[in-house]
Amino acid sequence: MHMVIVIQCADRTGLVSAITAVLAANKLNIVSLREYVDQTENRFYMRLEVTEQFDAVLLEQEFQQVLPAGALIRINPSPNKKIVLMVTKEYHCLTDILVKNYFNSLGATVAVVIGNHPTLQDICHRFDIPFFLISHENKEHVAFESEITEIIQRYEPDYIVLAKFMRILSPDFVAKFPMRIINIHHSFLPAFIGANPYRKAFERGVKLIGATAHFVTNDLDEGPIITQQTIPVNHSQVTADMVKAGKEIETSVLAKALRLVFDDRVFVYRNKTVVFDW
Amino acid sequence: MHMVIVIQCADRTGLVSAITAVLAANKLNIVSLREYVDQTENRFYMRLEVTEQFDAVLLEQEFQQVLPAGALIRINPSPNKKIVLMVTKEYHCLTDILVKNYFNSLGATVAVVIGNHPTLQDICHRFDIPFFLISHENKEHVAFESEITEIIQRYEPDYIVLAKFMRILSPDFVAKFPMRIINIHHSFLPAFIGANPYRKAFERGVKLIGATAHFVTNDLDEGPIITQQTIPVNHSQVTADMVKAGKEIETSVLAKALRLVFDDRVFVYRNKTVVFDW
Amino acid sequence: MHMVIVIQCADRTGLVSAITAVLAANKLNIVSLREYVDQTENRFYMRLEVTEQFDAVLLEQEFQQVLPAGALIRINPSPNKKIVLMVTKEYHCLTDILVKNYFNSLGATVAVVIGNHPTLQDICHRFDIPFFLISHENKEHVAFESEITEIIQRYEPDYIVLAKFMRILSPDFVAKFPMRIINIHHSFLPAFIGANPYRKAFERGVKLIGATAHFVTNDLDEGPIITQQTIPVNHSQVTADMVKAGKEIETSVLAKALRLVFDDRVFVYRNKTVVFDW
Amino acid sequence: MHMVIVIQCADRTGLVSAITAVLAANKLNIVSLREYVDQTENRFYMRLEVTEQFDAVLLEQEFQQVLPAGALIRINPSPNKKIVLMVTKEYHCLTDILVKNYFNSLGATVAVVIGNHPTLQDICHRFDIPFFLISHENKEHVAFESEITEIIQRYEPDYIVLAKFMRILSPDFVAKFPMRIINIHHSFLPAFIGANPYRKAFERGVKLIGATAHFVTNDLDEGPIITQQTIPVNHSQVTADMVKAGKEIETSVLAKALRLVFDDRVFVYRNKTVVFDW
Repeated sequence: MHMVIVIQCADRTGLVSAITAVLAANKLNIVSLREYVDQTENRFYMRLEVTEQFDAVLLEQEFQQVLPAGALIRINPSPNKKIVLMVTKEYHCLTDILVKNYFNSLGATVAVVIGNHPTLQDICHRFDIPFFLISHENKEHVAFESEITEIIQRYEPDYIVLAKFMRILSPDFVAKFPMRIINIHHSFLPAFIGANPYRKAFERGVKLIGATAHFVTNDLDEGPIITQQTIPVNHSQVTADMVKAGKEIETSVLAKALRLVFDDRVFVYRNKTVVFDW
Repeated sequence: MHMVIVIQCADRTGLVSAITAVLAANKLNIVSLREYVDQTENRFYMRLEVTEQFDAVLLEQEFQQVLPAGALIRINPSPNKKIVLMVTKEYHCLTDILVKNYFNSLGATVAVVIGNHPTLQDICHRFDIPFFLISHENKEHVAFESEITEIIQRYEPDYIVLAKFMRILSPDFVAKFPMRIINIHHSFLPAFIGANPYRKAFERGVKLIGATAHFVTNDLDEGPIITQQTIPVNHSQVTADMVKAGKEIETSVLAKALRLVFDDRVFVYRNKTVVFDW
Repeated sequence: MHMVIVIQCADRTGLVSAITAVLAANKLNIVSLREYVDQTENRFYMRLEVTEQFDAVLLEQEFQQVLPAGALIRINPSPNKKIVLMVTKEYHCLTDILVKNYFNSLGATVAVVIGNHPTLQDICHRFDIPFFLISHENKEHVAFESEITEIIQRYEPDYIVLAKFMRILSPDFVAKFPMRIINIHHSFLPAFIGANPYRKAFERGVKLIGATAHFVTNDLDEGPIITQQTIPVNHSQVTADMVKAGKEIETSVLAKALRLVFDDRVFVYRNKTVVFDW
Repeated sequence: MHMVIVIQCADRTGLVSAITAVLAANKLNIVSLREYVDQTENRFYMRLEVTEQFDAVLLEQEFQQVLPAGALIRINPSPNKKIVLMVTKEYHCLTDILVKNYFNSLGATVAVVIGNHPTLQDICHRFDIPFFLISHENKEHVAFESEITEIIQRYEPDYIVLAKFMRILSPDFVAKFPMRIINIHHSFLPAFIGANPYRKAFERGVKLIGATAHFVTNDLDEGPIITQQTIPVNHSQVTADMVKAGKEIETSVLAKALRLVFDDRVFVYRNKTVVFDW
C-alpha cells in the first residue's frame, strides 16, 4: 500500500530536492508527485506517494530539518478518518455517505449523525449509525450549538460534514473546528449566496444550476471552495424541478469533495484551496 | 425545405388544436412540434416545422382568426438574417463568426463590423467585411453612440451582436433595438456581474468559470439569458490563464446562442427566455 | 396533477390536429407538447401533458377513432410503476434505487430484488425489500432462468431493471419481457462491448470512460439506447480506479434512464429510442 | 519566463531527488512539478517548470549523469514549434488553427498547408499561408505521398497536423514521422473506427457523439490517444445534423490536443500517452 506525504510551507529554492533527498536516502521510491508554488503568496504545496510504508515519526523529523519553520507535514495522514454528519430533513447527501460507509468505500468512517429534525433518524438506524436529535426550537442558539459541540467533542472527528444542515452556525462554533467543517451549498457560488438559491435561479432564468462544496468560515457561503459542478436546466423546470435536479448535483459535488479531502488532495491557505486531483 | 412557424400569445384552452387545424386544412404535415405553457405567466409558446413551403401571408391571416389578440406570429422568419457585429480588441468571438459567415454556415449574414479600436480592422478586411472604426475617445458618449446608430440604421440588421464590445451602452441606445442586441458576458451570470470577472473569479478561488449569452436590456448584465456554459479551472490558473481558457467557452457559448436565435428557437417574455433546442 | 398522454403510430398529415381537437372538445388545456416525426421510418411520436385528469377510457376511444390502426396510446400510464431488480455483487446502482424507493422519490415502487449472489441480501433487508437468492451455480442455465421467471411473474412488474446483474440472459428469457428489461452497461456503447470494459479501456489508453443504459434484446449490448454519459480519466487511473470512477457514472446514467422511462418520456421503435427529456 | 523541463526514462529509486538536486545546485526554483511512475511499465515521467531561464546544454549534461541510459530529456523544448497542416475539404479545424496562428496565440507557427482538394486554398491565402494542392487523383498512392513528403521535408516541421485530411496514409509515410503526426478522428474511439462514424452513430441510435485526437501509427485509428470529448445528441439529429454538431467538438478536441502537445504536456510510450494537464 502506498504511503502519502503532504507538505505545505513558505517557498524557497531547493525544497523539492531537499525533501526527495530524504526519501532517496531511505530508499523510498516516489510513484507520484505533484508540486505547486503559488508565486503571489510565495507558498509551497507538495503531495507525493511512495511505494511502501516507512517510519512516519522518523521521516517527519528528517523533513523538519530541511524545511522552513512552520512547515505543515502530514505523513500517511489518518488513513481512515472519522467524521460527524449534521443534517436537517433532506436525505440525498446523507444516504450517499451512509451507503458508502456501509460498504467500506467512503475512505472514512461515519461516527454519528446529528439532526435538528427527526426526519432522518430512521434511515440512520437502518444503517446502525447513532442519530442525535438536537432540535433548535425553544432554545437559545448558543444552547443549541453547545449541545452539538458536546456530541462532536465526544466523538473526536477529523471532519464535520454539513450534509444539508440548514441552520447557520455561529462564529464561535466555527472557530472551534477551523477548516474541519465541510458544507454543500446548493448553488454555483458566488451566485445566489444565502437562502433559496433555486427560487432565485428560476426567477433569473438561468440555464445552469450548480452546487459548491466548501470549508465553512465565519463569512456565510464565503469559505474556501473545494469543488463545484453545474448542470443545464431549461425554461420548463420550475423551482421545484430545479430542487429535484439539484439533489443529484449536490450529492455528486459533496461526494467528490469528500473523496478529495479524505484522500489528502486538498490544501487550504487563506481563503483558497489547492487541489491535486488525479 | 422545412417551413418554420413560431407563435407566442396569451394561453387559453384549444390553441394547439386551432393552430394545427389550420395546418391540416391546408394539407401541411408537421414534422416536429414543441409547445410549452408558462402557467405562472399564462403564456403560450409554440414552434413547429412542416415538411413543405406554403403561402406565409395566407397562413398568418388564418392563424390571426383563431389566436388571441396580440399574438406574435412568425412564419418562415427571415431565413437568412442580417447582423451587425460590434467589437473592441479581442478577436475570438469575431473570427468564429467571420469564418462561419465566409463558409455559409452561420445561418445569417454579417453585414458590417463596428469597432471602437483599430485592432480587428485587418482581419475583417481579409474576409471582405466592411469595418467602421468608431473611437469612443475625445467625444461625448452620446456622440459615440449616435455614430454607431447611424451605421446600424444604414444596414438595417435583424440583430446586433456584441462580440466582446467592451463599452457600456446607454438606455437610449438599447431602447432603439429592443431584444435585438445579443451580448456575450465572460462569467456564468449572475456571478461576477460587471468588470473583470476573471480577476474576481481568481480571487474567490472558484473551480469553474463560465460565459453567458444574453439579450441586452438597460440593467447591466441583467437581460434575458439565452444560454450558459462552464468549464473547470484549478488553483494553478491565474487570472491570465483564466482569460485564455475563457476565450474558448465565450466563443462556444456565443456560437450556440446565435445558432438558437438564427434558427428561431428562442422566445423572450419579460426578463426570461423560452428555448426549444434539439 | 397533470395527465400524461403518449402516442406512437404511423405518420400521416393531420394527426396533431385530430388528437388535439379531441382534447379541445373535452376542454382539456395542453401545458406541454412534444411531437416528432421520424421521416425515414414514417413514424409519429407525441407526448403531452394536460392540466387536469379526465376519463382515460373515454379519451382512448375517441383517439382510436382518429388515429391509424395499430396506434399505441397510453393515457396516464401507470403513475406508480412496479419494478423488479436483478443484481449480482455490486451495490451502487441498487442502493441508489433502494434509497429513492424508501423516500418515495423513485417514480416507481421496488417490489423485489433477485440476486445470484448473497452479497446484497442484507442491504435489501435493511430497506424491508424481499431478496431472493437464485444462484446460477450447479444448475442448467435454463433452470436458473426459470426460477427467476417464476418470481418475476409472481410480482407482475412493469419493468425489470438489471442493476449490475452480471449473467447473460437467454433469448427465451428476454422474449418474455420485450422492451421491459433495462440494463446498465459499464461503457459508452458501442465501444467495449462485452466483458471487462474498464480493463479494455485502460489498455487502449482512452481519456473518457462512460456508461450506457439500454433496453435488453437478444443481441448482447446491442439493444435500444436510452441514455449515455462519459467522464474524463487520465493515465494515472489504472483499471481498478476506473472501476471505482465508473460506479458514479453508472449510477447516474441508470438513474436518469429510469427517470425518463418512469416519466413516460421514452419511445422505442425497432432498435432506437425517441426520448423527450425536459 | 518559465523554463520547461520534461524527462522520460526507466524508473528507479532516487530519480526525483537526483534531478532536483541538479536544479537546486544551480539555484533554480521549481514553480510546478508533476511526476508519475507507470508501475506496470516501470516507466518514469516528469514535467517541471522553473522560474527562470538557464543554460540548457549544461543542464542536460548534468541530467545525463544522474539518469538511466536512454533517458529522453527536453529542456525548454522549442518554444515556438513549426507545424505543417494537411487538409481535404472541411474548414473548421483548419480555420481555428489559422486564426490562432494569425493572432500569435497558437503556441506554434503554421509553415504551410497541404490540401488534396482546392477547396481551402483561398482561406489559406487570405491568411498569407502557402497552400500546396497535391491531388490524389490520377496517380499512384506512393507518388501522392512522395509529393507530400517532399514538401514536409522542405519545411522541417516539428509536427504534422491532419486537420480533417481524409486519405489514409501508408505505413511508409507514417514511419518517416514517428509520433509527430497528429490526427483528429470524428468519433470517441474505439467506437466507430474507420469511415462514416456519424452515419454509424445515427444508425446505432447513440445519445453521445465525440471526437478523438491521437498520434498516427500504422494501425488505422489505433494510435496513442491525446484527448477526447463527447457531446449529447438526440433522436431528432439525423446524420447531417450530427456532422454539423461534430464540427464543434472536433475543433475543440484538436485545439486542446495541440495546446497540450505544444506546451510539452504529452508523453508517449508504446501505445499510450501520459498527459500532465493543468
